[in-house]
Amino acid sequence: MRATQFFVSTLKDAPSDAEIVSHKLMMRAGLIKKLSAGIYNYMPMGLRVIRKIEGIIRDEMNRAGAVELAMPVVQPAELWQETGRFDKMGDELLRLKDRHGRDFVLQPTAEEVVTDIVRQEIRSYRQLPKNLYQIQTKFRDERRPRFGVMRGREFTMKDAYSFHTSFDDLKREYQNMFDTYSRIFTRLGLEFRAVAADTGAIGGTGSHEFHVIAETGEDALAYCPDSDFAANVELAEALAPTTTRLAPQAALTKVHTPGAKTIDELAAFLKIPAAQTLKSVIVDGDEGIPVLLLLRGDHELNEVKAGKLAGVLSPLRFSTPATIEQAFGAAPGSLGPVGYKGRVYIDRSAAVLSDVVIGANENDYHFTGANIGRDFPEPAVADIRNAVAGDPSPDGKGKLEICRGIEVGHIFQLRTRYSEAMGCKFIGEDGKEQVMEMGCYGVGVTRIMGAAIEQNFDERGIIWPDSIAPFTVVLCPMGWSRSEAVRDTANKLYSELQALGIDVLLDDRDERPGAMFADWELIGVPHRVVIGDRGLKENVLEYQGRRDAEATKVPVNEIASFVKSKLSN
Amino acid sequence: MRATQFFVSTLKDAPSDAEIVSHKLMMRAGLIKKLSAGIYNYMPMGLRVIRKIEGIIRDEMNRAGAVELAMPVVQPAELWQETGRFDKMGDELLRLKDRHGRDFVLQPTAEEVVTDIVRQEIRSYRQLPKNLYQIQTKFRDERRPRFGVMRGREFTMKDAYSFHTSFDDLKREYQNMFDTYSRIFTRLGLEFRAVAADTGAIGGTGSHEFHVIAETGEDALAYCPDSDFAANVELAEALAPTTTRLAPQAALTKVHTPGAKTIDELAAFLKIPAAQTLKSVIVDGDEGIPVLLLLRGDHELNEVKAGKLAGVLSPLRFSTPATIEQAFGAAPGSLGPVGYKGRVYIDRSAAVLSDVVIGANENDYHFTGANIGRDFPEPAVADIRNAVAGDPSPDGKGKLEICRGIEVGHIFQLRTRYSEAMGCKFIGEDGKEQVMEMGCYGVGVTRIMGAAIEQNFDERGIIWPDSIAPFTVVLCPMGWSRSEAVRDTANKLYSELQALGIDVLLDDRDERPGAMFADWELIGVPHRVVIGDRGLKENVLEYQGRRDAEATKVPVNEIASFVKSKLSN
Repeated sequence: MRATQFFVSTLKDAPSDAEIVSHKLMMRAGLIKKLSAGIYNYMPMGLRVIRKIEGIIRDEMNRAGAVELAMPVVQPAELWQETGRFDKMGDELLRLKDRHGRDFVLQPTAEEVVTDIVRQEIRSYRQLPKNLYQIQTKFRDERRPRFGVMRGREFTMKDAYSFHTSFDDLKREYQNMFDTYSRIFTRLGLEFRAVAADTGAIGGTGSHEFHVIAETGEDALAYCPDSDFAANVELAEALAPTTTRLAPQAALTKVHTPGAKTIDELAAFLKIPAAQTLKSVIVDGDEGIPVLLLLRGDHELNEVKAGKLAGVLSPLRFSTPATIEQAFGAAPGSLGPVGYKGRVYIDRSAAVLSDVVIGANENDYHFTGANIGRDFPEPAVADIRNAVAGDPSPDGKGKLEICRGIEVGHIFQLRTRYSEAMGCKFIGEDGKEQVMEMGCYGVGVTRIMGAAIEQNFDERGIIWPDSIAPFTVVLCPMGWSRSEAVRDTANKLYSELQALGIDVLLDDRDERPGAMFADWELIGVPHRVVIGDRGLKENVLEYQGRRDAEATKVPVNEIASFVKSKLSN
Repeated sequence: MRATQFFVSTLKDAPSDAEIVSHKLMMRAGLIKKLSAGIYNYMPMGLRVIRKIEGIIRDEMNRAGAVELAMPVVQPAELWQETGRFDKMGDELLRLKDRHGRDFVLQPTAEEVVTDIVRQEIRSYRQLPKNLYQIQTKFRDERRPRFGVMRGREFTMKDAYSFHTSFDDLKREYQNMFDTYSRIFTRLGLEFRAVAADTGAIGGTGSHEFHVIAETGEDALAYCPDSDFAANVELAEALAPTTTRLAPQAALTKVHTPGAKTIDELAAFLKIPAAQTLKSVIVDGDEGIPVLLLLRGDHELNEVKAGKLAGVLSPLRFSTPATIEQAFGAAPGSLGPVGYKGRVYIDRSAAVLSDVVIGANENDYHFTGANIGRDFPEPAVADIRNAVAGDPSPDGKGKLEICRGIEVGHIFQLRTRYSEAMGCKFIGEDGKEQVMEMGCYGVGVTRIMGAAIEQNFDERGIIWPDSIAPFTVVLCPMGWSRSEAVRDTANKLYSELQALGIDVLLDDRDERPGAMFADWELIGVPHRVVIGDRGLKENVLEYQGRRDAEATKVPVNEIASFVKSKLSN
């Protein structure tokens, strides 16, 4: 491609509504252009990245034996009513009416439609298993679209759905997809991690998320460097300490702690470690009476774990100040278990403490020397905190570390949740009718573009992995209009690289070197060759990889093979 | 691909709502599956065809210098309000509201969005021309979706939009796109014709349609075998006859013509040729008084031409029986110009007649021996009929022929209709601001699939051109589970053909020969190789092209190169 025939459009500054680095860089590099909140045009430069991502996904899905189809963006409400999701899904599901007033939705996923296809098309165990996938436009009417393509409203997703005669066969295909996803993200050139995940609202049993590792990731991931263990922190078990509770040493003493509302303020005020305090978190109970959750002061509540406790309202809801005031007679910042008659849970790590500091249920007062069992009844012990770095790995093979990730893939064992509701059955080898087992497997195509940038950038711009760069190599001729020698060499090299099957762009815009380099560093083309009169006098061109600190001089007649040797494939 | 790993699903009978052959065959061959009226799932077999069509279009558009991008399916109403199309477009434009109550549309085309992009991105003549295209999901809420993918609601279209500094440059690109479209349809393996077209509601000046020739086509096309002339009959000029009107010979005579309401009935009753009668068509005038249009009895009114006449309401509307009764004092079937005080037009071919039969404006009565100028005033003469086979070509180079076609592409010179309304301007070489000239160029991707079938089928099913067949070659082993020799030969040939880059399917379903052949003939795979024990004894396999009457025996060791030689590329 020649730059003048393409559409190169860069910006010096990112628009003010771009909050994260990938969004800023995508806007500045001209990959996307905002049309409406959470709705983007994929500009020519960005679409090339998308097409390469799609190509790798399609290739690996086909290799894994999945079969591609395409389900419509506009789907009739009736199918969504069969599973109850038409009503349950809330405002994220964009509903619309056609000219005849019939109800439709824009697809956020396609469980209903694919199950409808399969229940009509597949009758016998002989036709199973099947894994059907599409790479299609999706729509989710996010309340607050943000982060560019990371949390957009219209986006592209690869969604696959598998159908099976047995749970064992589902598990086999689940492993096949796990392996396929690993191959996909490896080929995309991204550092990633597969972690055990909560199955959440979509339901089913087993589930793994695939995360692109990035400091800016929304999710915290716990993993053990010494074993296979990896899980979203939402799900990672925090084991009970091996230590036991010491006998009380101190007496329960009420102290005045004016202004000390947070654990940090309290610890600083009393000059004690936060780990010697108990944090009180109040959530709504399922019978109207709040539930008190006690954690070690330096630990964080895990909302997913807490949401599953008996007596706690699901999904988890933090109690309002008014409810708390009424139940405890004090405001948040001075709460505690002493005298509380409602349900109380204590985290495993908090349950082994003695002589702790807790709120006194009286504004600006805490107790020191508080002891479980002596000063308040032994609460039910549960795992309700987030795992932290240094915790023992739940598989007993080492210590956990924590990193941050961006979720780009998710695989689920749906089991019979949809097939049961929609009557998706087959006749088994024994002649009896059975409900199919189902799995589903999603990859956020457009989201990968953002995640790849969050993982790979510097102060000058994006640094694409070779496999998904909009162009793999850019040729930068110095003085395009001025020097015939430069033009001839550039044109010749352009043809040579194309003949080698390399995706090369020749920048024939006749820009100044500084502007030209800035553009391609911002856009993130991973390999650059500079063609200039000065080098040509010595018969050399300058190669520089996007991460290289310096350029390498390469003889003109060796440059094509040199560039090829630098490519990752 | 192996059939057991794919999704093969054929039907004996087409569903009752399938009216035309392509719709029936697409349903029976399992290419599409209805989800809702005019909304179809593209099943794996059909999606392969779509992807091949898209691939050829993309390849040729890129070669022509156009640049691909992707614009969202969900578009904000504001842009559509700028051009007035939000209100003007009627119920075909599907409007919806997001969770915040903001208005959006589902894109039926993308003139507004692409013009919005270009007015922001392009400032200087140096950045022009540009031709931007997408291959994207479109939605038109047809009042009566029918004919499968031919008139569906959700469909895939390639839409391109070009921007220029001058009308001359637009005309250059228009020719470039004309040539590109010709290459696209040639590569698709379809018999097609480009014809001059009416610009209709979309506006602009020059326009051509590309039609796939098929007897079942909705459009009549006029073309001259001896020259380049070709036009949609809507637009094809019917030249004035070279003969002049003879002097009246007969006297005006009123005759009783009971029950003779149509021209055919009248001609039969009077035993005269239809060409000796005048047909009266009454349409609404723009000032409330109906306009009488006179045509030779054997000619058809051309509504597009008539709709452009001075004094005729646009778009054309046929007058109601009540209006006609009031204006003429008689019912349709006996109408004529004698005594009519309103505006009258006569077609060029009717204007040269003398001694004709016309309605007498009295129910069940006609005049014979009527003469223009003598019995009623000379009406304005105009070209208001459809051209017919045998008419002289408007370019004076021979006689017209008529064929039928299915419109699959349309190119327009939009000029400044959208760029003016949306302020899409550039700074010219002279430093002055100017409005851009625009062209637009559409191809109905999913429609091509239907049109290709309408052109290529027989009583057994579809006959795909090689370039867009879901599979180019099918291998049919006889007795897959029974014969190891058959299996081995089939597997070996399968690998050989794959190594040659041929898109081959191996039918390993172990079906009976009859059912297997019927499936692949219905699906329309253009090349078939049968592997059977009987042939293997003679060391031969049977090749048969989908259009061949008989199979050809080919030695096993020559079959791969034999098959390759049969492929069109």
